[in-house]
Amino acid sequence: MSVIYALDLIGTFVFAISGTLSAANKKLDLFGAFFTGFITAIGGGTLRDLILGNFPVAWISDLNYLLVITLGVIATFLFKNMIMQLKRTLFLFDTIGIGVFTIIGIEKAISLSIHPVLAIIMGLFSAVMGGVIRDTLCNDIPLIFRKEIYAVACIVGGLLFLILKYLHVDPTVNLFVTVICIIVFRLFCIRYKLSLPVLKY
Amino acid sequence: MSVIYALDLIGTFVFAISGTLSAANKKLDLFGAFFTGFITAIGGGTLRDLILGNFPVAWISDLNYLLVITLGVIATFLFKNMIMQLKRTLFLFDTIGIGVFTIIGIEKAISLSIHPVLAIIMGLFSAVMGGVIRDTLCNDIPLIFRKEIYAVACIVGGLLFLILKYLHVDPTVNLFVTVICIIVFRLFCIRYKLSLPVLKY
Amino acid sequence: MSVIYALDLIGTFVFAISGTLSAANKKLDLFGAFFTGFITAIGGGTLRDLILGNFPVAWISDLNYLLVITLGVIATFLFKNMIMQLKRTLFLFDTIGIGVFTIIGIEKAISLSIHPVLAIIMGLFSAVMGGVIRDTLCNDIPLIFRKEIYAVACIVGGLLFLILKYLHVDPTVNLFVTVICIIVFRLFCIRYKLSLPVLKY
Repeated sequence: MSVIYALDLIGTFVFAISGTLSAANKKLDLFGAFFTGFITAIGGGTLRDLILGNFPVAWISDLNYLLVITLGVIATFLFKNMIMQLKRTLFLFDTIGIGVFTIIGIEKAISLSIHPVLAIIMGLFSAVMGGVIRDTLCNDIPLIFRKEIYAVACIVGGLLFLILKYLHVDPTVNLFVTVICIIVFRLFCIRYKLSLPVLKY
Repeated sequence: MSVIYALDLIGTFVFAISGTLSAANKKLDLFGAFFTGFITAIGGGTLRDLILGNFPVAWISDLNYLLVITLGVIATFLFKNMIMQLKRTLFLFDTIGIGVFTIIGIEKAISLSIHPVLAIIMGLFSAVMGGVIRDTLCNDIPLIFRKEIYAVACIVGGLLFLILKYLHVDPTVNLFVTVICIIVFRLFCIRYKLSLPVLKY
Repeated sequence: MSVIYALDLIGTFVFAISGTLSAANKKLDLFGAFFTGFITAIGGGTLRDLILGNFPVAWISDLNYLLVITLGVIATFLFKNMIMQLKRTLFLFDTIGIGVFTIIGIEKAISLSIHPVLAIIMGLFSAVMGGVIRDTLCNDIPLIFRKEIYAVACIVGGLLFLILKYLHVDPTVNLFVTVICIIVFRLFCIRYKLSLPVLKY
């Protein structure tokens, strides 16, 4: 099992947990929670594959994604108090998930000869659209539009990944450097309360 | 005209009515009502076909779907009081629609060699995503996430359908047995107020 | 550069501005504004291309769309007061955008041998779905479902376009006649406060 595949499954697992926690917040039932966890985990990658015309979409041809999501939802139901206390750990895995999803999206786009700038947008879509759909279904304005330099971290990481790729850095090294850069960037912005300007009327 | 095609059109018709009634509830205009009815009726099947890479999507290659939806929307506008009084009949057709959409989704997925577990998810998507999109557009948290064992009925029915299919039961018999099972299951749950557990913080 | 391509880019630019203004209204940050502007501008065409199975979607194979959207978002941030005062001009360009998007959608559908009635629906989707997604993301009921004969203008314009096309009118003449018809129709309805009936319980 390759490193990126393992990280992809970890990211999927963590995204399923985050979706299930959102559902709990809205008092959804077990099905609503499973569905929200599922959409959060596969939404970004599915939309990316649809836009790229890359069929069948990832989770249709590999049952492991569904398995990992199911485990994430069940774990959240069984151990919700413990999970709530693991906020720091969850945050770390969430950031890893974002980083890995960004890079998987870029890699898929590049392999289909998409322009690098659009490849970064595809990476961003992979990383954030699951959460955007989750928030829209739960009747919230997507979190990512309002708080934190979450998306900028993906874009910066994606740029770095592309630059190192064109410099022929070893793919696994590049993956680790980029994901660590995304984590550090995100922590740094949170620590110093950096945020993007807001457009006001 | 095959039985399943006829039931598909009936399901589409009933879903168009349910979408139009939602729109009326939100005081949308005639176009909003038509659009909501249309999306409710074709949303689930369209999303299924997109995910499966099954082009062109069903309603693009067969004008009857659009015709049936238009009739459903107009009927709701003209006879809304009568339709409101037909709640039991509507509920019955709605459940038939769900059952048929579930099975059509499973059949399409199986014919594309999708894993049976994912085929059931495709059946579920066909049956419920139209309503999910309807509720999201109308700014509600999807009904299916909060109330009633609606989705579980699809999953149970889908499982039964697959088992009977692998036992080489006649397709039409299988269709009727499965849809009746879904109806009975749903009515049973409503009668005895069975619902799924809710995850609370 | 053909006339329709130039108008397509203008429409994309104006839609990006309208999305960014919606975002400002909801106090979204720079990323949220960019994302909303982007989705508003490409949402309709992307959904159309997905449904038609027309890959890759338009903005993936032509970087100019992204460029024009970026300019629209930045212009809105820099000159928001001036833009707010240009409401009449914006309204005019918005209507041009709608008209052009309708006709591009119809042309694409016809070129794929879609039935003319469904081609008009594809034209409508191209013109309005960006705004529908924008409003849904911003947690509003889509504007187009409640106010103004915006969608009817697309349908009327689309019908006229198809009739003139079958009468072998020169494409550029047809484009201008249709877009002007859509603008006049829309202005006429707003001037005389014409609106569609609302379905009430």
